[in-house]
Amino acid sequence: MSDDDAVLFANEAFYRAFADRDIAAMAAVWSFDAPLSCLHPGWGPLFGRADVMASWAGILSAAEAPNIRPVAPRASVHGALALVVCFEALGESWAIATNVFLREGRLWKMVHHQAGPTSERPPATAEMATSGPLH
Amino acid sequence: MSDDDAVLFANEAFYRAFADRDIAAMAAVWSFDAPLSCLHPGWGPLFGRADVMASWAGILSAAEAPNIRPVAPRASVHGALALVVCFEALGESWAIATNVFLREGRLWKMVHHQAGPTSERPPATAEMATSGPLH
Repeated sequence: MSDDDAVLFANEAFYRAFADRDIAAMAAVWSFDAPLSCLHPGWGPLFGRADVMASWAGILSAAEAPNIRPVAPRASVHGALALVVCFEALGESWAIATNVFLREGRLWKMVHHQAGPTSERPPATAEMATSGPLH
Repeated sequence: MSDDDAVLFANEAFYRAFADRDIAAMAAVWSFDAPLSCLHPGWGPLFGRADVMASWAGILSAAEAPNIRPVAPRASVHGALALVVCFEALGESWAIATNVFLREGRLWKMVHHQAGPTSERPPATAEMATSGPLH
C-alpha cells in the first residue's frame, strides 16, 4: 500500500467512525501520543486528547449527529505527516475539511481536524466515483 | 529561536502579508517546492502553487480585502511539519484557521491554509495580550 493509500485509508476510518457514531473507533483513529487539535464547524479550537475526545463523545451521541460521507479526498504526504483535504457530504449540505495524520510505526494517526461550510460542490466525477454509503 | 517561535514568526509573516495586501510577501510565505493546498472560507479546495497564488492575487487586490489580525496562535511542531491554530479577527467578525508549515532549511514555509467562520471568541487574555495592529 502506498503512503497516499495508507493515509486515505486512515481518513476513511475517521469518517466511518463518525458515520457509525462509534466512539471507540473514533478514539483509535486519533494519536495517543502527539498533541491533538480539533476545529469543529463554528466552534472554538480544542486542544489535547481529553477535550478533543469529549467533543466527539458529545457529537456522536447527539440525536442530530449527521450522516457524513467523505467525497473527493486528496492526500499530500510530507515525510511523517500527511494532510488530507476532502469534501464532507452532510445530507443536503456540504462542508470541507483538513485532516492531518502523523505516521506512527505502520499506522497513520489523526492529530488535527478542521471542517467548515462551503458553498462549492465536489466535481461530478468525484461524486460519481464514490461507492455510496460507507457500509 | 525555538521551533515554536520560528513557526509562530512564519504565521505572523503570513498575516502581515495578508493585512498589507502584499502579494510578493505572500508569495514568499508559501513553499515553492512542496504540494500546496488552500481552503478559503466558503470556497472549494485549491491545489497547487498556481491556483493558490492566483486566489491570493484576487483576494489581496479586492476592494473589500479584510483587515485581518491573528489572535491566540498556538503551534504544534511534528518534526519537519508544524501546525498553527489561531483565531482571525476580521473587523467585527471572527474566523478560525489551520495553517501548516514545512521546515525548509532554516525557514518554515506554508503548505496549507484553511479558515472558516466561528461563533466563538478567543480568551480575553489572548486578545489583551496582542500588541494591537500588525504595523
